[in-house]
Amino acid sequence: MKQFFSTNDIVSLSHIIKTALECKENPFGNEYIGKHKTLGLIFLNPSLRTRMSTQKAARNLGMEVMVLNMGTEGWALETREGVVMDGANAEHIKEAAAVMGSYCDVLGVRSFPKLDSKEEDYSDDLFFKFANYCKKPILSLETATRHPLQSLTDLITIIEQGEYFYDAEKGNYIPKVRKPKVVLSWAPHVKALPQAVPNSFSEWMCRAEAEGLVDFVITHPEGYELDEEFTKGAAITTNQVEALKDADFVYVKNWSSYEDYGKVLSMDSNWMLTLEKLEATNNAKVMHCLPVRRDLVLSSEVLDSDHSIVIEQAGNRVWAAQAVLTEMLTHNK
Amino acid sequence: MKQFFSTNDIVSLSHIIKTALECKENPFGNEYIGKHKTLGLIFLNPSLRTRMSTQKAARNLGMEVMVLNMGTEGWALETREGVVMDGANAEHIKEAAAVMGSYCDVLGVRSFPKLDSKEEDYSDDLFFKFANYCKKPILSLETATRHPLQSLTDLITIIEQGEYFYDAEKGNYIPKVRKPKVVLSWAPHVKALPQAVPNSFSEWMCRAEAEGLVDFVITHPEGYELDEEFTKGAAITTNQVEALKDADFVYVKNWSSYEDYGKVLSMDSNWMLTLEKLEATNNAKVMHCLPVRRDLVLSSEVLDSDHSIVIEQAGNRVWAAQAVLTEMLTHNK
Amino acid sequence: MKQFFSTNDIVSLSHIIKTALECKENPFGNEYIGKHKTLGLIFLNPSLRTRMSTQKAARNLGMEVMVLNMGTEGWALETREGVVMDGANAEHIKEAAAVMGSYCDVLGVRSFPKLDSKEEDYSDDLFFKFANYCKKPILSLETATRHPLQSLTDLITIIEQGEYFYDAEKGNYIPKVRKPKVVLSWAPHVKALPQAVPNSFSEWMCRAEAEGLVDFVITHPEGYELDEEFTKGAAITTNQVEALKDADFVYVKNWSSYEDYGKVLSMDSNWMLTLEKLEATNNAKVMHCLPVRRDLVLSSEVLDSDHSIVIEQAGNRVWAAQAVLTEMLTHNK
Repeated sequence: MKQFFSTNDIVSLSHIIKTALECKENPFGNEYIGKHKTLGLIFLNPSLRTRMSTQKAARNLGMEVMVLNMGTEGWALETREGVVMDGANAEHIKEAAAVMGSYCDVLGVRSFPKLDSKEEDYSDDLFFKFANYCKKPILSLETATRHPLQSLTDLITIIEQGEYFYDAEKGNYIPKVRKPKVVLSWAPHVKALPQAVPNSFSEWMCRAEAEGLVDFVITHPEGYELDEEFTKGAAITTNQVEALKDADFVYVKNWSSYEDYGKVLSMDSNWMLTLEKLEATNNAKVMHCLPVRRDLVLSSEVLDSDHSIVIEQAGNRVWAAQAVLTEMLTHNK
Repeated sequence: MKQFFSTNDIVSLSHIIKTALECKENPFGNEYIGKHKTLGLIFLNPSLRTRMSTQKAARNLGMEVMVLNMGTEGWALETREGVVMDGANAEHIKEAAAVMGSYCDVLGVRSFPKLDSKEEDYSDDLFFKFANYCKKPILSLETATRHPLQSLTDLITIIEQGEYFYDAEKGNYIPKVRKPKVVLSWAPHVKALPQAVPNSFSEWMCRAEAEGLVDFVITHPEGYELDEEFTKGAAITTNQVEALKDADFVYVKNWSSYEDYGKVLSMDSNWMLTLEKLEATNNAKVMHCLPVRRDLVLSSEVLDSDHSIVIEQAGNRVWAAQAVLTEMLTHNK
Repeated sequence: MKQFFSTNDIVSLSHIIKTALECKENPFGNEYIGKHKTLGLIFLNPSLRTRMSTQKAARNLGMEVMVLNMGTEGWALETREGVVMDGANAEHIKEAAAVMGSYCDVLGVRSFPKLDSKEEDYSDDLFFKFANYCKKPILSLETATRHPLQSLTDLITIIEQGEYFYDAEKGNYIPKVRKPKVVLSWAPHVKALPQAVPNSFSEWMCRAEAEGLVDFVITHPEGYELDEEFTKGAAITTNQVEALKDADFVYVKNWSSYEDYGKVLSMDSNWMLTLEKLEATNNAKVMHCLPVRRDLVLSSEVLDSDHSIVIEQAGNRVWAAQAVLTEMLTHNK
């Protein structure tokens, strides 16, 4: 694997999930495959889970890790072509990426959107230029459009917590009884947040649905439609009550409008998930990528109940990252 | 050891001191007991000695170390129950601590007091919630009320530099001739500093006195009385000259008022320790936890004299941390 | 080697270059000589290449690495003697350096000049006090006057990319045909930059010229003369066209005035290197220490052409650091 940015970089969902669950079963089973290899983690934005889980995954494989916080430890990067660099940006990504690539065997990059220009953000310009110039395998640590380590984690968690068996002959996970119903449910927030997590979750769930793993439904207020690129095949409704009916997994997440780009159109607290709303579900497990603002995005009563699997979910970040790094170290042609 | 926060977490002072001095004698004698274990160091405030010495100690034991500076690399944590999180805090400690706990085998947390509210600070709310939610052994890297790695270091240094023999049968250090007189002497400062270091030093010295290791005296201007919880059994005087008489160790430290909470009541430079004042001592060794402001808190003439053991003391931070981590790795039930 | 600050710390240029190129050939050939040794990297200023390449070099030798960003993770240091420390500086370098020295086996320090006072900057006070008080081998990660890891890298790159053979009997590199002509060419910039890189490059090239390795020429506008300490023996001209004639290597760099200290006297874009100007050279290879501002300091057409070796040059930072650390670990008396 030369790049981990979207589902397109994954040949088989079941294969990468299986690799991840094997890592969880036996974290140090491949502790020498990363020997003498260095992972560079480049953060243009803050990070807790991604930072720690990816470091841990790399060390479990014997890799060296170098973390660089560009904002506080480095400087601002220019990504545009052909501009006279007489402003705030001290280095062009052409040089920065190439140099980091020469020091590292695998690179990870986090770069949040500014939420000003849809076109600029959705080009994921910085990530792709980084990928192009660093000349090394690269993984997204979240970009404007996607957070694939999170979404792989989410799928692993659903497979793990749902009822599936692994068909070794076909190399596929198969639901034991029926496909679980997975609902992505928009939630209110005071700030404008990127669409990366819901885009990415939707992309992975649509593919999981196509591969017979889940039934996927999205629910959000009007005006919060995600880019169709990520929701092809998903059932979409503005009726949360209907969406939650018989749900097995409810994935809660706020995002700002894609259409009216980066805007907060609603702070309607009725969209916050409560225990009462969960009564209509199939005793659903509740997921969130974290950090989560309690009693704004998700009620404490839900987070503190047995419905919540957010901590187990976050814990799986390690195994998602370890599976991706394992692929990059072993199949990097 | 599941927690290292106060002397109450230590069964035997002599045992932990002996472990530390064995680590100093042979730093890599247990370099495999931390293999495949990860220490997470979470800093809500700056750190030099604690940061470096604890990292070093962990690596000496073969542990992986992940450092997270919450302020610059992460975000602000909410610790209150039942509040709608629509303000500046992006994540609740319930989730943050649980997730970090799932990535790490041992956690260390530093959180300074704000010096606004005595009740809030002295609850050490963040540390205890962290300890509760992370579900892993946890060590204080300094909280509002205590700095136990510093105080253990201080005691190790006194045992090492004083005249003691180790009674292997009883498992105790015993003064060869007489118990050294240890004086905690308040010093002036321009800023309001926490009471954590003097509280903690006092707590450890009171216990060391109870176990026959030292004679302990505290001296400070009126209004600087520490919380009695930490000074039970100590002799306390506002007469510095009297306190210093025949002292073997003088521990210099500024702190703000506990009574008139967080206030600077005196900047009287007469309280600064000088060579002249040391003449009345028993050629006392001078200690300070560092960082120290020269010629404000402690005179350069003292720091540059043979009286000062502040560098040796700071060096012992490694062995205190290594002893605590050794306990956590070997007796963590 | 107890110190790496200037060419004076190097016995033989050819020996250290050979060590570096052997490290490049076989990065893990000495992966145990740093076992149980710790490198402390202390940054008072941002860093990308120095930070990553020096970490990598140390890990290639089996050393532990601890990074400390004094600005965000620590606090401001006092370097003056005999001042009452009642201002912004929380710790004196006497204590800070001594303590870091007690935790580490080798230290690296980066400290940029303020460009206010020539005398203050050029004393490199902080570095030398650090070196004095830490009592451990110390390497400059760039100071006010020099950037020796960069300059060693530059020389390695010239030897590697030029035509030289190694005379094993004499222990010297010798030009195969003739000494390449190396030109240091001033370039415009919008900000006032230190003289450290050009000083240091000039110092190393003057010595390389004295040892028969290169012909060295400096060209800059009037008023940009470097301190003569660094340029002894160099040909200096304000005629860039003349300087570039038949050049084999052109080292491009901006710096502020030394004479009119820290001032920007010219932003003349005619001094920017272009492909047209390179026509008069001997198909010169173009070097820059990076970060470089495109189309301000150096034209994109040059950076994107085969003339540019800036990425290979930056890559060699690892081997320069690894050679220096190898010397420090093996000959540190």
